[in-house]
Amino acid sequence: MGSESRGPLRLLRETHEERVITALRTQGPLTRAQLAEQTGLSRATLSSIVQTLLARQMVTERGAAEEAVAGTPGAVRRSGAGVRGRPVSVLTLNPGGGLAVGMDLGHRRVQVTIANVAHEIVASDGIACAERTSWARRVQLAIDLVDELTARHEISLIGLAGLGVGIVGPVAPELSVRSARGPSPGRSGLVRGALAERFGVRVSVDNNTRLAALAEATWGAGAGVESVLYLRLSYGVGGGLVLGGRLLAGAGGAAGELGHISVDRDGPRCSCGGRGCLELYLANLVDEYGGFDSLSPHAITTIATRTGEVLAAACNAVNPEVVVVGGELTAAGEHLFRPLRKALREYTHTQVHRTLRVTQAQLGYDAAARGGIALVLTNPPEEAEWRRTSCS
Amino acid sequence: MGSESRGPLRLLRETHEERVITALRTQGPLTRAQLAEQTGLSRATLSSIVQTLLARQMVTERGAAEEAVAGTPGAVRRSGAGVRGRPVSVLTLNPGGGLAVGMDLGHRRVQVTIANVAHEIVASDGIACAERTSWARRVQLAIDLVDELTARHEISLIGLAGLGVGIVGPVAPELSVRSARGPSPGRSGLVRGALAERFGVRVSVDNNTRLAALAEATWGAGAGVESVLYLRLSYGVGGGLVLGGRLLAGAGGAAGELGHISVDRDGPRCSCGGRGCLELYLANLVDEYGGFDSLSPHAITTIATRTGEVLAAACNAVNPEVVVVGGELTAAGEHLFRPLRKALREYTHTQVHRTLRVTQAQLGYDAAARGGIALVLTNPPEEAEWRRTSCS
Repeated sequence: MGSESRGPLRLLRETHEERVITALRTQGPLTRAQLAEQTGLSRATLSSIVQTLLARQMVTERGAAEEAVAGTPGAVRRSGAGVRGRPVSVLTLNPGGGLAVGMDLGHRRVQVTIANVAHEIVASDGIACAERTSWARRVQLAIDLVDELTARHEISLIGLAGLGVGIVGPVAPELSVRSARGPSPGRSGLVRGALAERFGVRVSVDNNTRLAALAEATWGAGAGVESVLYLRLSYGVGGGLVLGGRLLAGAGGAAGELGHISVDRDGPRCSCGGRGCLELYLANLVDEYGGFDSLSPHAITTIATRTGEVLAAACNAVNPEVVVVGGELTAAGEHLFRPLRKALREYTHTQVHRTLRVTQAQLGYDAAARGGIALVLTNPPEEAEWRRTSCS
Repeated sequence: MGSESRGPLRLLRETHEERVITALRTQGPLTRAQLAEQTGLSRATLSSIVQTLLARQMVTERGAAEEAVAGTPGAVRRSGAGVRGRPVSVLTLNPGGGLAVGMDLGHRRVQVTIANVAHEIVASDGIACAERTSWARRVQLAIDLVDELTARHEISLIGLAGLGVGIVGPVAPELSVRSARGPSPGRSGLVRGALAERFGVRVSVDNNTRLAALAEATWGAGAGVESVLYLRLSYGVGGGLVLGGRLLAGAGGAAGELGHISVDRDGPRCSCGGRGCLELYLANLVDEYGGFDSLSPHAITTIATRTGEVLAAACNAVNPEVVVVGGELTAAGEHLFRPLRKALREYTHTQVHRTLRVTQAQLGYDAAARGGIALVLTNPPEEAEWRRTSCS
């Protein structure tokens, strides 16, 4: 193996330090055991690296009890560490290393959340807006919220690493934005431009349902999981696919469009260009009943079954570890989840459903804003020049 | 931004050199223009790095004409470089940097292909075997082929980077292999163990249809493309999903199981545990007609339409750039592809089909063995300790 160790392959080694830092940045606080699992490094190697990083104050360490208070229980929950009552310390990046701002410019609400690189939320607030509110106005509302939050909490944005912003509707990758035929280049371009000018940092824009998917995979029901398929069952049906902590964009920026998988090959034409889409099917049924709250148990079972079939197709294609379902319709609880799980099992390969967990979303109205933060923290600044969906 | 540039984020930078080497290792020969596109580096930065790598003999350079003779036309085709008749030189890793062996232990054939890190095939051969041939015997046939090829071509395996092996049937990730309930742990474990003992290097085992997918994404119809969905339409229907040059395994090692997406919710139970699966639907239809060659035009159209619907569901979930279709049934040419494309367009979101290309597989019987090579070249040896599907 002599020529290999002297050859170009040797150069490919990620430094072990980088692996540790990437894990802490993308996943937040982790115990040593979790870090070992995430990085694949031996305990001995890891121990020596952590020692060095602590000495250089790039990483900080604290007890699990203090951690729970800090509001990031995910890391401790993930491995079940500490269940025997022993104090388990968690490692985080030095919170002074940078801030990320997440925004959700939603249909009826503008939300702003600010976190540090240690994944601690340092400020968060939202404001209602009318559906007809212009995009320029929504951006201004978000900027005002940032100003207010930074003043109220005495936060300096000197160390701002970037902005991640969720908007309604499809967001094409930059390649499509350059094309006249690209979907809604104006809207995402306007948002990016205005925010980049105001804050002088990289601004990443994506669909807010997709950002909610990333947030669930980072902070919520899919935390610490390699592959998460997220579905939002609301007046619209959307989704997102998070692999290795990264949101999959897809060639047209539409990966995870589960609402437009067909449940009826002879069904009506959908505005997306498809036919018999789940979203349309659900919307028609909800209309028929006059709203989510009026759906009969039978109607909920039918929706759940169709949704399970759609998820089955997606799961056979992607074989995720967790399916997270969010949105208003999950208020139906097991009336929804029981038939959904049954259909999902009925139409998937054994190898797919044997390893699959289906669970309800955990995050609330700030999910997409948190996803914006995760988008910033999972994309190191160095990548700005080549990430399609970013501009600086 | 002062605190950011001094903070931990700075450490996250991949070295530019590593980016260049990774691109050449995973994608083979590339022009400077292609390298710039792949790495996102500026022409100036790239030029200085290439200069350094050439001086250190880690990278070699040659004219496009010579390249075409070397049998790797993909790199030149990809960007259309050289169409104006100007000589365009391509860069590769120094071929002396290492070798990779790919094997396909198929139903009726054992194939061995050997390549260097510059993506040049240096030897390849196959031998027919009976379907009832034991796995131990298939492994021995493959070992004999390696011995014969290395002797015939005077190849030294001193610089062997690893073995990538395709086998029939599902291959569970290592986690499942440890579980008694995991699918076929014996078979992949046996293959891995015997080959690792014989060659003393890391051996990666995966399903051979999935490896064919990786090969098409690396050397074939999906070369140079970010996301490739591969479907094999044969007596069995399988597939694979390649994202960023990497084969997606999925939680149960079953990502890309497109043959088990249901085309009939009331259809018959499939051996996979699902119901109304495309594979079963196709098998029953082919049985009815007495073989692929006897299918009526109407039957081909029906199969193509059902296949297009299945691909549409998968494409809405993943939004790939290219769908590559291989297998015996593609001999029907446009009789298959025309209705398949029609159905695919009919049932996908506009944003998904607008950026989608559907194309026929390019590689032949050595596709899976080549995929084994790609598996080795896309997994740096350093990752051996933490890649699930590998052992050393």
